[in-house]
Amino acid sequence: MPDTNQDLAHRLDRLESRTAIEALAFNYCHGFDKREFDRFLSIWWDDCVWDIGPPFGRFEGHAGIHEAVKDVLWPAWLQSQHITSNHVIEFESDDRAHAICDVDCMGLLVGNPEATFVGATYQDVAERRSGVWKIAQRKVTMHYFNNFANTTLTKPETE
Amino acid sequence: MPDTNQDLAHRLDRLESRTAIEALAFNYCHGFDKREFDRFLSIWWDDCVWDIGPPFGRFEGHAGIHEAVKDVLWPAWLQSQHITSNHVIEFESDDRAHAICDVDCMGLLVGNPEATFVGATYQDVAERRSGVWKIAQRKVTMHYFNNFANTTLTKPETE
Amino acid sequence: MPDTNQDLAHRLDRLESRTAIEALAFNYCHGFDKREFDRFLSIWWDDCVWDIGPPFGRFEGHAGIHEAVKDVLWPAWLQSQHITSNHVIEFESDDRAHAICDVDCMGLLVGNPEATFVGATYQDVAERRSGVWKIAQRKVTMHYFNNFANTTLTKPETE
Repeated sequence: MPDTNQDLAHRLDRLESRTAIEALAFNYCHGFDKREFDRFLSIWWDDCVWDIGPPFGRFEGHAGIHEAVKDVLWPAWLQSQHITSNHVIEFESDDRAHAICDVDCMGLLVGNPEATFVGATYQDVAERRSGVWKIAQRKVTMHYFNNFANTTLTKPETE
Repeated sequence: MPDTNQDLAHRLDRLESRTAIEALAFNYCHGFDKREFDRFLSIWWDDCVWDIGPPFGRFEGHAGIHEAVKDVLWPAWLQSQHITSNHVIEFESDDRAHAICDVDCMGLLVGNPEATFVGATYQDVAERRSGVWKIAQRKVTMHYFNNFANTTLTKPETE
Repeated sequence: MPDTNQDLAHRLDRLESRTAIEALAFNYCHGFDKREFDRFLSIWWDDCVWDIGPPFGRFEGHAGIHEAVKDVLWPAWLQSQHITSNHVIEFESDDRAHAICDVDCMGLLVGNPEATFVGATYQDVAERRSGVWKIAQRKVTMHYFNNFANTTLTKPETE
């Protein structure tokens, strides 16, 4: 029995959805680390929950995202770089998916000259509404949060 | 000459296979690091070869996977996080592919308070049998295996 | 209105292009770190620009790639491993795309026993010419370039 165009379109939709969901996790990093707030906000539904856990807390909705980033996290981190990996996505339906990924973050906290590193796992629920994928829930589980002894972060010399 | 549905279905199959093969590498990490043995075992064919090399050895079949993980690796590592990257997949046929990726691993070894990090490359042969992709062979090449001086891994404070 | 085969083929092309563009970033790492010059060169158009910035400089064309790698970078780095992440690709047309990714690099510089690490972002322009995707421009923005104190890179013991 040959594949119908409807079958093929459905399989394509899954692959495109997968790409869109991965891009949410990627733009989280680019938006946060490069301090592009609009990019960061664009990945979240306005009724989202971002449960970071200790030491930062739990935030809800776009107002919560704004508070977390502008009042808590950006003031705490002078700089940061998140590396995400191991993106596994499972579809509950065509418009709802569960995604997990691991992240290593390197950065500098205000008042601490030593480089801080964090290892964590993100568990996301992504939803497609009116054709657009965004994150409805992100739960962060931190595995470690430490400093590299006697090691700092500086840009390379320009001379 | 227009694309036939058969052409399109074949191209889709390659993209779906690519996604399935990447997921094997990702679930290796999630299964190992989060100590979900069933997830870890599910990526391997029962006639697989997992050649880790020094200092851990070479393991064959599901019995070898069981031994490596439960008798050697999990007892050695108190915790770990693998970050994989640079997944390049080349198809030998529709049902057999060669994949390479790089990995950075951070963890704590039993009896060593300093964080241990490992850099390695995985070379895999993945095979599709009865419609399912799993790993037939994984060869590990380690580039470095060291400790971060005076640096440990701890969870963030909850207070 | 059902999808035509032409519609489906165009959507497939985008996904295949995305895979091809990601593979350029991956083979950059494999080629550079594993010292496979042909693999490294194969990702660049012969009129490319590779703007690394300080401390390494700006290089043009295949002659520039050759000089950068063989005269500057490989002589400077005894070993390296690049981990790329957060690949976001935006298409300007079917044959031209803008891609960004983040990278963490770990390595050893000649004359420095301490492990050196670099965090950076790559901004690429990829072009498809005669059906083949390669990089036309890569701009590197380095965020940090430091040593891990009292930490080196060595292979695991074989005994």
